[in-house]
Amino acid sequence: MTGTAEAREAVVLLSGGLDSATVLAEAVAAGHRCHALSFRYGQRHSVELAAAAQVAAALGAVEHRVMGIGLGAIGGSALTDDIEVPKHDDVADLVGGVPVTYVPARNAVFLSLGLAWAEVLGADDLFIGVNAVDYSGYPDCRPEFIAAFEAMANLATAAATEGGRRFRVHTPLIDRSKAEIVSRGTELGVDYAMTVSCYDPDAGGRACGRCDACLLRREGFRAAGLADPTRYASGPA
Amino acid sequence: MTGTAEAREAVVLLSGGLDSATVLAEAVAAGHRCHALSFRYGQRHSVELAAAAQVAAALGAVEHRVMGIGLGAIGGSALTDDIEVPKHDDVADLVGGVPVTYVPARNAVFLSLGLAWAEVLGADDLFIGVNAVDYSGYPDCRPEFIAAFEAMANLATAAATEGGRRFRVHTPLIDRSKAEIVSRGTELGVDYAMTVSCYDPDAGGRACGRCDACLLRREGFRAAGLADPTRYASGPA
Repeated sequence: MTGTAEAREAVVLLSGGLDSATVLAEAVAAGHRCHALSFRYGQRHSVELAAAAQVAAALGAVEHRVMGIGLGAIGGSALTDDIEVPKHDDVADLVGGVPVTYVPARNAVFLSLGLAWAEVLGADDLFIGVNAVDYSGYPDCRPEFIAAFEAMANLATAAATEGGRRFRVHTPLIDRSKAEIVSRGTELGVDYAMTVSCYDPDAGGRACGRCDACLLRREGFRAAGLADPTRYASGPA
Repeated sequence: MTGTAEAREAVVLLSGGLDSATVLAEAVAAGHRCHALSFRYGQRHSVELAAAAQVAAALGAVEHRVMGIGLGAIGGSALTDDIEVPKHDDVADLVGGVPVTYVPARNAVFLSLGLAWAEVLGADDLFIGVNAVDYSGYPDCRPEFIAAFEAMANLATAAATEGGRRFRVHTPLIDRSKAEIVSRGTELGVDYAMTVSCYDPDAGGRACGRCDACLLRREGFRAAGLADPTRYASGPA
């Protein structure tokens, strides 16, 4: 994808986390003019939206917008309800099943809204940081879901059905390990100190060090042999 | 679909308009416990949300929720931007193409949010009032879009991939004319005086009588030989 002579518009879903920051770096490196989109959907912490704004600016997105979605009206997740975020002592405890932090139909919702913006912008390319390796418990992070979304998207919009355009959903991280992701991102100049992965940061913005996301992140830097710039409140050494 | 012994939960997308009111009546008649969902996404008039609440109560939905979506952040439509709603003198003027009132990727967005609620509720059935006859200009009202959405939905959620559930998107109006819709709804007891179709009602809540939606609605009642209970401000006789 690199080496594109003409800068094409792209919509990049940006959470403020490690994965989506790496995706934005990939999209920029591929020559896209990137429009970054974040969502405010009742998260317990808004620190990730501040991180997203900082990451978008640092990596050269042409703009960053935050869209509110009232998912609180329907409930259903540890990220939006008042359920305790599960903590672990070791990455090996993260086994199978769908995590309780699952937000119902999240990527279908987020990609649909990204698609709406892409149509308005005249962008054919959508980028999302799904990953089928470390997050295998999430059904909407698998290649078959992405392919089905893409097929639906190309029937959903006037741009595709009348305008002859073809939407593509790019998932550059889908088969990478966390270690491969942080290695590649570091190569592309991502400053991971700006990113936030933790589901349950403390008041000072420090990561808990023991939720699913913290454990995977920490293990990724360790496996890649890179220094982890994250400020952790606690957790395994 | 009628005659179901066991009441099954269903999510019904309800705009406050004529079509979705009829769909809710169909879902109730089929024996579903209906959870009605409306969206607040920057419409110029909130009169349709009040209509949706009234319709939900009158037709026996077990609940009605309104979810906000910040589509204003991305713009792109006569319903959300400050573009003039086109007016016509005759239904014959409504020819081909995508209406300027098109909201980008709207049904993909609305169905995705309906899917999220369905997963939370344990509902397998989603109802939407798309219609491929009168609104043929909208790409996301066609059967092939609905089929693609359903395929995507069954890969998007933990309920479907782990729980063995199968989501269905019901479109009872998809091949009906407006006249057939109002005839059937009248049979099911829908009070269309509660519903709002107009894209541009006046301050007193009267329909403009000349936008696309008003013309199709008026023509539907006429063709069905039914009295049109709508209060119009103006328009063809």
